[in-house]
Amino acid sequence: MTTGGFRGKILRIDLTNKEFYEETPPLEFYKDYVGGALLSAKIMYDETDPKMDPLSEDNKIIYSAGPLTGTDTPCASRLCMVTKSPLTNTITTSLSGGYFPVELKRAGYDAIVISGKAEKPTFVFIKDGTVKFRDATRYWGLNVFDTQMYMKEQLRDQNIRISCIGPAAEKLSTMGCVINEARAAGRKGIGAVLGSKNLKAVAIRGTDEIPVADKARSKKSISQMLKYFKASPMAYPQFGTKGSSVAFEVTSNLGVLPSYNWLNSEDIDWDEVMGPEVLNEYNITRNPCDRCPIACSQVRLIRKGKYSGISSEGPEYESMFSLGTLLGIKSAEFTIVADRLTDELGIDNISVGAAIAFAMELYEKGIITKEDTGGLELNFGNEDAALTLMKQIAFREGFGAVLTDGTKKAAEIIGKGSEAYTLEVKGLELPAYDARGLKAQALNFATSFTGADHNKGYAFQEVFGTPYPHAVDRLALEGKGKLTKFNQDFASLYDIVTFCEFPAQAALVENFQALTAELLSGIMGFEYTEDDAWQMGEKLINLCRMYNIRNGFTRKDDSLPTRVKNEPIPSGLSKGAVTTQEELDFMLDEYYEARGWDQEGMPTPEKLEELGLEFAIKDLP
Amino acid sequence: MTTGGFRGKILRIDLTNKEFYEETPPLEFYKDYVGGALLSAKIMYDETDPKMDPLSEDNKIIYSAGPLTGTDTPCASRLCMVTKSPLTNTITTSLSGGYFPVELKRAGYDAIVISGKAEKPTFVFIKDGTVKFRDATRYWGLNVFDTQMYMKEQLRDQNIRISCIGPAAEKLSTMGCVINEARAAGRKGIGAVLGSKNLKAVAIRGTDEIPVADKARSKKSISQMLKYFKASPMAYPQFGTKGSSVAFEVTSNLGVLPSYNWLNSEDIDWDEVMGPEVLNEYNITRNPCDRCPIACSQVRLIRKGKYSGISSEGPEYESMFSLGTLLGIKSAEFTIVADRLTDELGIDNISVGAAIAFAMELYEKGIITKEDTGGLELNFGNEDAALTLMKQIAFREGFGAVLTDGTKKAAEIIGKGSEAYTLEVKGLELPAYDARGLKAQALNFATSFTGADHNKGYAFQEVFGTPYPHAVDRLALEGKGKLTKFNQDFASLYDIVTFCEFPAQAALVENFQALTAELLSGIMGFEYTEDDAWQMGEKLINLCRMYNIRNGFTRKDDSLPTRVKNEPIPSGLSKGAVTTQEELDFMLDEYYEARGWDQEGMPTPEKLEELGLEFAIKDLP
Repeated sequence: MTTGGFRGKILRIDLTNKEFYEETPPLEFYKDYVGGALLSAKIMYDETDPKMDPLSEDNKIIYSAGPLTGTDTPCASRLCMVTKSPLTNTITTSLSGGYFPVELKRAGYDAIVISGKAEKPTFVFIKDGTVKFRDATRYWGLNVFDTQMYMKEQLRDQNIRISCIGPAAEKLSTMGCVINEARAAGRKGIGAVLGSKNLKAVAIRGTDEIPVADKARSKKSISQMLKYFKASPMAYPQFGTKGSSVAFEVTSNLGVLPSYNWLNSEDIDWDEVMGPEVLNEYNITRNPCDRCPIACSQVRLIRKGKYSGISSEGPEYESMFSLGTLLGIKSAEFTIVADRLTDELGIDNISVGAAIAFAMELYEKGIITKEDTGGLELNFGNEDAALTLMKQIAFREGFGAVLTDGTKKAAEIIGKGSEAYTLEVKGLELPAYDARGLKAQALNFATSFTGADHNKGYAFQEVFGTPYPHAVDRLALEGKGKLTKFNQDFASLYDIVTFCEFPAQAALVENFQALTAELLSGIMGFEYTEDDAWQMGEKLINLCRMYNIRNGFTRKDDSLPTRVKNEPIPSGLSKGAVTTQEELDFMLDEYYEARGWDQEGMPTPEKLEELGLEFAIKDLP
Repeated sequence: MTTGGFRGKILRIDLTNKEFYEETPPLEFYKDYVGGALLSAKIMYDETDPKMDPLSEDNKIIYSAGPLTGTDTPCASRLCMVTKSPLTNTITTSLSGGYFPVELKRAGYDAIVISGKAEKPTFVFIKDGTVKFRDATRYWGLNVFDTQMYMKEQLRDQNIRISCIGPAAEKLSTMGCVINEARAAGRKGIGAVLGSKNLKAVAIRGTDEIPVADKARSKKSISQMLKYFKASPMAYPQFGTKGSSVAFEVTSNLGVLPSYNWLNSEDIDWDEVMGPEVLNEYNITRNPCDRCPIACSQVRLIRKGKYSGISSEGPEYESMFSLGTLLGIKSAEFTIVADRLTDELGIDNISVGAAIAFAMELYEKGIITKEDTGGLELNFGNEDAALTLMKQIAFREGFGAVLTDGTKKAAEIIGKGSEAYTLEVKGLELPAYDARGLKAQALNFATSFTGADHNKGYAFQEVFGTPYPHAVDRLALEGKGKLTKFNQDFASLYDIVTFCEFPAQAALVENFQALTAELLSGIMGFEYTEDDAWQMGEKLINLCRMYNIRNGFTRKDDSLPTRVKNEPIPSGLSKGAVTTQEELDFMLDEYYEARGWDQEGMPTPEKLEELGLEFAIKDLP
């Protein structure tokens, strides 16, 4: 049997003992667990205790790429990182792009499983099957761009690709992310896990070709994929010119773009002030991921005024919200500046913005004062204060130390009823979609295995009006349970194979599962059907659900923030919208039923067996 | 005859017509003009009008590397840039290190001569003999590090080396420099010449080996060189641990480290506050030039407080002065922060510091007020104001627009007798050696062909007490004319062959000319003696002198600033020292005589003939 796509080797790195070895799983493992999120979640499930402290040396962190990565498939240079999150206390997965993923495969591995804790700051240098542990003391404290620049010079090879953490993750901020070249595995404190292991970076270089089982067959699928890209009104015309900022026009005009710490979702026409048309005036170049014809990533530069000379690869849509509307800062330039700063510091720009917005509301309400903030005047709209606080959060200094582990933790420290002003699920701050006016988004935020994560079941039907699997009313409750199951299973597939969500949602849509199954069959040499592709996604969701159940998670954790449940949107096109606990319960009932789970949100033994997860049945409470 | 070291090809680039061709000079040309500064000065002399506007398209800018570059010779990855300076209106040469120089040679060229002016922002990409003109509109306004990062991604080759300008040079600031990777061709507005040509960058990649005429012979010389390095008490023990900051201890303790815009040269023990021992606490890694065993370059990082996370490859000694003592800022951290900023902006950190210090004195004396400065409180020691002004200077904004073309020009704009507070020769701001207490330094500043340039005849005898060619009294006048000729000829050799000045001064000293002659003979295949090596240096000085004479320069231009001539150092170990016009005249007389020039500073026809510069005799007035 000719196989391909995967390399057949998983690199195991033990930081405690500075040891490594190569594992060669059986073919069956690759057929069943494919790659990316599913392969990694299985390893986490088998080898870690879901009740462990995520920042202890018992935690593992797994880098992986899917079977499509490094082949001729476009948009498949995606890296999946899986660990137990110190922010949400759940298993979590995070995807990012760039060139690192292809380099990982070329170096000979499908995944790197990192365990233990190094005695002192360390980085790992992997080159075509050789692994070296190197002292990283010198890089500790250095921002991510400088780290990469000096490390490449030190290693005398400019072509290595580097995944590293910045100051925030070193300080174990649960907003600390991992930056893979210029792309972030951004949320849920994944970087803090590296920080807790004293692991500053993984540097990688590989030169192998990735084998493909049936080139002619995969070529045909790829050719079909490119046809879909071309036919899509979204892919090249929208993502290709504006990147993710296209969503800003839509949410702004639907009245579901939260501003001022969710006190509003419409107060000015944000789109005209700082939307994609405004931002695109600053575009200078693009920096696409490997083998991506769409090239959504825009590099932007400010050429005059206070912020002259500052550039950033961004902001993405989410940062236009978290570093803009949420802070009441009406400035496209500020979002460029703050976006650059968060990248340098290696900090999640959604959570850091949310934390500052939370502090601003408390400050304006008098719940905290200048005495608490160390003199910072945290009014909405204060750019200088926001930048200063951002640095303090990253370095765990001043008032930043109160916020650096997320708003849930901050509210516990501050007290005085401040938890009413947090916007989080399972500890993860909500992204840029008002869960009051977008019901399936709300349900996804409540039920995602890793908190309010927009990438784990994005309701593109509600935002972009995509009529697949059918047209939906964004404010209706009925059908949203089924739709959320659909969207989560849909999204899981690209995290497994690993493929970019933008073309999956924007260009492939109803063809995604069938095309992926055919492409996987051609590349891997195992035979998959469209149903198999759907089941892979469902399997991931159930496996992660079971991981969290072992840690004590129940239906009560599938929750929404106080403000979303109790304070209707005060004005605009979504005026009056709110998602009450009663509404959430209605949707949860339907969702659990669609999933084949009981009404406590527990998978049934039958469902687990159906998905090939028999081994997890014993873990049901 | 076997030859080597040089590639035999000079690349000609015409930006106006987007054309290029390769020139293959005769062997004789290489034998006589060797490489680097001498080869390039000859081209400038032959092909440009010394009276031209340096920022017009008539000017040329020449990149070159010497015959040692790219061979096994250590410390020879040096790039020489030659042009007519828009700051000093003279011919000028500037050297920098890194990896670009070796790449230039590997790409097949000894030099690149760039002429004309591109219609719009352009960069040139050279790869193993292919040359492409590329649109650089996207990079215009981008800082130097970001330019390099995005350009490498655009060109899909991380291994290219990039020489580029930042915002300052784009704005034609005569403080604008060229940054070659992380190394600056820093002074005299060389970057502005690129800016005036709409040339953002030269990107280069080469893979050839550099031929060597007699490997066994050159190997022997290199081995001898490394023995000298090892035996030197300065090279590894001092430069290898502290880099150029070693000079700070010395000048601080001799009372010749100017502070507060030269109002003093000793007011506190600067060394204890921000000397090398303090700075070295911030060291994180080194970033040596290609094939350098000494590795003087220290990368420094601030790990806590206001400037947390800021790193810089520096500061060098000169920046400790210009961004520290000269501004009355008593902070090692500030010098790191400001050093990084000047690199990003691509601005000469000596001149920019000198300009800010000049403005600070005027502000404190009430000659300028807040109304002039746009609200900036320019008191000595004001860190925030200094950083803001630095950006304004680079972007030619606010009060920065007044200072951005240097202090000489700024004094003309400001008037009110402000020229008395400038410290410049031929427009170039003085570096970190108090010319009142170091007489040979003073004379070198006065006579260097490119203004107050410390690299063109550094009096290491006065600073470090090196007894070669003999011990000197730093305050004595007699003998300083001869010594300055000696030092200038000494220094010129390393600008020609191209070799780093630090090991030449610190480890080779009395062996430098003989060793270089032997090394050149082995590498190039022409036979050179120690006398030849001395004569090369002298030839460069005379050729550049003649270039400036054609532009009308005379003895009166060999001057010193008002303060140096009239205001004695007020306190400390050099208290009372001053270098009056009378003293300068005494030294000039001796210097001209030592040079074989007449008392107006004109080379004699005999001297020109002796040096093989007969062609210049016709240009004597």
